Amino acid sequence: MESFFELKTPAEVFEIIGRFGPVGEETVSLENAMGRVLSRDLVSPEDLPDFLRSTMDGYAVKAKNTFGASEGLPSLFEVAGEVLMGEAPGIVVKEGQAVKIPTGAMLPKGADGVVMKEYCELVDRETLEVSRTIFPLENVIQPGDDFGRGDPLLNRGHRLRPQDLGVMAGLGLVQVPVFQRPRIAVISTGDEIVPVDRRPLPGQVRDMNRYTLGALCHRKGAEALCMGVCPDNFEALREISLKALDQADSLWISGGSSVGTRDLTLKVFDTLPEFELLVHGISISPGKPTIIGRCGAKPVIGLPGHVASALVVAEVFMTRLISRLSGGAGSGGGIQGGVEARLSRNIESANGREDYVRVKLAQEESILTATPVFGKSGLISTLVESDGLIRIDMNTEGLYEGEMVEVMLFDPVWGGLS
Amino acid sequence: MESFFELKTPAEVFEIIGRFGPVGEETVSLENAMGRVLSRDLVSPEDLPDFLRSTMDGYAVKAKNTFGASEGLPSLFEVAGEVLMGEAPGIVVKEGQAVKIPTGAMLPKGADGVVMKEYCELVDRETLEVSRTIFPLENVIQPGDDFGRGDPLLNRGHRLRPQDLGVMAGLGLVQVPVFQRPRIAVISTGDEIVPVDRRPLPGQVRDMNRYTLGALCHRKGAEALCMGVCPDNFEALREISLKALDQADSLWISGGSSVGTRDLTLKVFDTLPEFELLVHGISISPGKPTIIGRCGAKPVIGLPGHVASALVVAEVFMTRLISRLSGGAGSGGGIQGGVEARLSRNIESANGREDYVRVKLAQEESILTATPVFGKSGLISTLVESDGLIRIDMNTEGLYEGEMVEVMLFDPVWGGLS
Repeated sequence: MESFFELKTPAEVFEIIGRFGPVGEETVSLENAMGRVLSRDLVSPEDLPDFLRSTMDGYAVKAKNTFGASEGLPSLFEVAGEVLMGEAPGIVVKEGQAVKIPTGAMLPKGADGVVMKEYCELVDRETLEVSRTIFPLENVIQPGDDFGRGDPLLNRGHRLRPQDLGVMAGLGLVQVPVFQRPRIAVISTGDEIVPVDRRPLPGQVRDMNRYTLGALCHRKGAEALCMGVCPDNFEALREISLKALDQADSLWISGGSSVGTRDLTLKVFDTLPEFELLVHGISISPGKPTIIGRCGAKPVIGLPGHVASALVVAEVFMTRLISRLSGGAGSGGGIQGGVEARLSRNIESANGREDYVRVKLAQEESILTATPVFGKSGLISTLVESDGLIRIDMNTEGLYEGEMVEVMLFDPVWGGLS
Repeated sequence: MESFFELKTPAEVFEIIGRFGPVGEETVSLENAMGRVLSRDLVSPEDLPDFLRSTMDGYAVKAKNTFGASEGLPSLFEVAGEVLMGEAPGIVVKEGQAVKIPTGAMLPKGADGVVMKEYCELVDRETLEVSRTIFPLENVIQPGDDFGRGDPLLNRGHRLRPQDLGVMAGLGLVQVPVFQRPRIAVISTGDEIVPVDRRPLPGQVRDMNRYTLGALCHRKGAEALCMGVCPDNFEALREISLKALDQADSLWISGGSSVGTRDLTLKVFDTLPEFELLVHGISISPGKPTIIGRCGAKPVIGLPGHVASALVVAEVFMTRLISRLSGGAGSGGGIQGGVEARLSRNIESANGREDYVRVKLAQEESILTATPVFGKSGLISTLVESDGLIRIDMNTEGLYEGEMVEVMLFDPVWGGLS
């Protein structure tokens, strides 16, 4: 695996990832729709609200009856009753009449506006002084002000947030069409790897990639099917890969770190049905030996064996793949929440290669500083000590101390809001 | 509810929220620990790795035997065998001997470094030319390089990320001590509110807060216990509140929008066991009428009835409360991932009040612009159309078109990465 056919740039890889599409649709209940991606455009089935609603505590009137009313010259109204919350008022407001109304209640027929109670004073139980002119439809929400019947509501591909569930609840949309969560089969290969519940013998290590990659899938809304540990053996890897393809929407193999393992992954991929190689090496560090191919519509991925490299590749590329398989836009145009920080020291970087550097954040008075976490690439401690990644462009030779950099956070909230 | 005893500033409210603590501890399996908050400091139970490990494909040697070796003057070694992945090598490397070794394998006894295979050439099956000098411990990871036995690993209060699960897997820590997810009882009050599966009669609306607040709890790692809709009735609200306190770690009541509902919430709170009022009104918009109190260690919250106001208060304050109850740091020092954007128009704001303004993002060439989404405060469409919030400080009178602002995203990833 010394030579790569042709290293792809990250931009090319994003474009290739963007060609994959959602794995399927299903319907979930509103309670379970948080964070899911809509599989269809939603249209409002009715007006929201569907009645003329007061936005203030006050009195419902015919607006024109208040014309000219002011503090110096209030208008007099006859109090014709009161509207209660949640009821269709039986009263009809006639010329010169006012009906008491709370915020959120339905306006009685004949009224077209609400005078805030601050501008109203009861002279006696049946007589009201209004000291302000209101315009028609003042202090009311009209039917359809939120969404009118037939209005576009939310689009296919939109990831549902609390407010989106709120509006669906308001409209009675309790069955939600969403894309299925992609099922990702994760296989760790390597003769030295043992399952986590076994005590490693000298020369052996416990399987970490299963947990790092599985957790990343989970965090991004995919379901991880952990297929276990596989030795560096062609037949065994082929067998488990076929089984995985049968059960899952995508297959990820993280190579052990032995010589030829990555060759082995590609050899196995080559024998899978309809396999097509799309990426054989990416011009990034870490993560250069990444393989991306497809079996029909299913992406098959060969990730580096080093746990830290595999996780960086997963953070940068596989999160986008999961987004695509989940019905999201995936690559291109995505803006990830991050933080700006001042670099605490110079970082060198090779031209022609995009570097993802682990950094640790610290709050120094009013400014956030990012300090690179260096260390041998095989060490997971470098990632555990880091808060996020900074990207160094292919066309630069590094970054300087004091530069402001954008940090992609491993966790969307860094620091106190853990 | 016209007058508030004393409006608290957001900073004061954050401080008050910071006084609440985690609700309890439990043990979860490593598979289920993603996103959970550690309840204890973890210490490494063993060395990781626990053997001297090669980081390169090459030959294990005594480093001193390579001293002086160069391209022009290579040193000769006797090839004494090969180490296989995952095995404890039986060979002992003697003076002048080299043993073939793959990346990740255990060094044989006697060797203290690895020469990369790029600097090695087999003259015949038993003779190796080495064209580079290596230092002792070059191209190896020593026992404990990642974490040594007894080293601090991860601290209490840390929210677990994929890499953290990875290192726990590597150390065989499969049972993880975490704080319990807080259970939040959510009650919607209002005579006009009907459950979502009922067709509202004229004057009635479906319960939205249950879904918006429930989804926000879910997104922040809490469990929402939806207690259903309660009419604006003292006895009914008191009864359901007592039941909620019995089952949950915190009680949130979002008032209906009828007159006196917020009075009602406080009246009911006042009768709950050990109730203490902490906040009665916050100097923010929207969300001023928020109530925060406690019954013993359990926070009891009165949220605005307007779905949009309730959700903004929940985004700004309740996420921190959930963090505290989950064992996180909660208020103070938290830095939320966001994006910088250019404001597309002026926004006025009252002095002495912190405003949270809904904005919609758009990518215009290389710059992100934020446009305020205005609209009647009772409309949820304003939140559905928005991508996030910007905060306008108490001591300013607004923001100007063209200013760069920090947008708190409703969703940590905006745009293509949905």
